[in-house]
Amino acid sequence: MKTTGGTDDQKRRAAERAAELVSDGDVVGLGTGSTAAHAIRAIGRMVADGLDVRGVPTSFDSRALAREAGIPLRSLDEIDGVDVAIDGADQLDRNLAAIKGGGAAHAREKVVDAAADRFVVVADPTKVVETLSRSVPVEVLPDARAAVERDVADLGGDVTLRRAERKDGPVVTDNGNLVLDCEFGTVDDPDGLAQDLSRLPGVVEHGLFVDLVDEAYVGTDDGVDVRTRE
Amino acid sequence: MKTTGGTDDQKRRAAERAAELVSDGDVVGLGTGSTAAHAIRAIGRMVADGLDVRGVPTSFDSRALAREAGIPLRSLDEIDGVDVAIDGADQLDRNLAAIKGGGAAHAREKVVDAAADRFVVVADPTKVVETLSRSVPVEVLPDARAAVERDVADLGGDVTLRRAERKDGPVVTDNGNLVLDCEFGTVDDPDGLAQDLSRLPGVVEHGLFVDLVDEAYVGTDDGVDVRTRE
Repeated sequence: MKTTGGTDDQKRRAAERAAELVSDGDVVGLGTGSTAAHAIRAIGRMVADGLDVRGVPTSFDSRALAREAGIPLRSLDEIDGVDVAIDGADQLDRNLAAIKGGGAAHAREKVVDAAADRFVVVADPTKVVETLSRSVPVEVLPDARAAVERDVADLGGDVTLRRAERKDGPVVTDNGNLVLDCEFGTVDDPDGLAQDLSRLPGVVEHGLFVDLVDEAYVGTDDGVDVRTRE
Repeated sequence: MKTTGGTDDQKRRAAERAAELVSDGDVVGLGTGSTAAHAIRAIGRMVADGLDVRGVPTSFDSRALAREAGIPLRSLDEIDGVDVAIDGADQLDRNLAAIKGGGAAHAREKVVDAAADRFVVVADPTKVVETLSRSVPVEVLPDARAAVERDVADLGGDVTLRRAERKDGPVVTDNGNLVLDCEFGTVDDPDGLAQDLSRLPGVVEHGLFVDLVDEAYVGTDDGVDVRTRE
C-alpha cells in the first residue's frame, strides 16, 4: 500500500525547501513517510544550528525519527495550534486534494495537518495526477468492519481489508483499529466522497484530504515546483 | 450524563411493545440503557418460549444483559445485516432525530442501529422534545482531544471532557477513546451539525442520529405512542 516511485533526490529537494518555511518559535507538524522524513532530518539540522521549534509528530515513526534528529517534541494536547505542518501524500490532484494513509497513519496525520495554519505537502512528481485514482484508506472500528464494507460497497467502492505482512491477520493502526483499502476508480468528486465516508458509522477517519493542503512542494530533477491551492 | 426521568413503567411498556416486532429468524440489534434493557429482557422471555433469533449487542452492558436473558448472540462480523434494532435515546425530536451517547456507547450503537432495516427507538415521554437541546457526546481519539475541542468551539459548542466517577481521569469508551460533551444550545439544524461533526479530524463518532430512526415507541402511563418518521 505504501507508495513508491520518485527519486530520493526529488523527495529530499522538496522536503528541504519546505523545511525552510519553519521559523523561530514555531510549532511544526512532522509528517510520516519517506519524503516527510527528509524534512524532519532537515529541521533537525536547523535545530542543531540554533533554531527554536517544537515538533508535533504525526505517527510512531515520525516521533522516533524526530527524537533521533534532536527536535524537541510536544504532544498535541500541550500546544494551542500548529504553525506549519509538513507531510507527504500518496496522491495529489491539481486542486491539492490528496489521498494519504498508505502507511495507515492518516487519522493522526489529519488531526495534526488540519490543526496547522499552513499545511505543506512534500512530494515527488509521480504523486501528482490530474484526477485522484488511488484506493482510499479508511480506518474503521474493528467491530464495524463488515458493516462499513457493506456501506462502502453501496457507495460504489471495492473493499480490501489491509493485511499485515509481519504478523498474522490484519494491519492494526496506532489507534487499535483496522484499515479498509477502498477502490473507487477515478475520484471525480473528492469532497462529496469525503463527506459520504465521514458520515459512515464506524469510520474513524478516511484518507481523503480535501481543502486541507495549502501548498505542495514537488521536487523535480533540478528544483522544486511550488503549487498553491486557489 | 446519563438521562433520567420517566417512570420505569413507561419505559417497560415502550420496550415490550417494540419487542413484539421481532419475529422468528431475525437478527436483532440490542440497545443500551434502562429502556432498551426492558426490551432485552422481553426478547429473552420470547426466546425461552421458543423464538429463534440472534442478538447483536450494542455495548458491553447489552451483551452481558442479553447473555443473562438467554439470547443467542452474534458479532456484527458474522451477520449480513440486522433486521430490527431496538435502542433508547437521550433525546428525540418530532422528526425522530435523536441524541444518544449519555452512556458513551453511541459509536457502536450507531454502527448496529444504522445497519438495521428497521431501527426503533424506545423511550419515555420526558425524552421527546420539539427541538434537540441536550449536549452532544462526541467520541474522539485521545490524541485529538485538544484539537477537536478547538474545532467544536469554532462550531459554536461549549465543550466538557467527560470525567469518570469510579476511576481517576476521563471516561474511556469501550473503543479506548475519550468523550467530549458538546453543548450547542438548541440544535436547529441537526443534519448540518451532524455533518460538521463527522468531518472533524479526530472525531470517531458523535451522538447525533439523523435520518436513522424509523419509528419511536414512547411509553405513556396507559399505553404506547408510536411515531413514524415522515
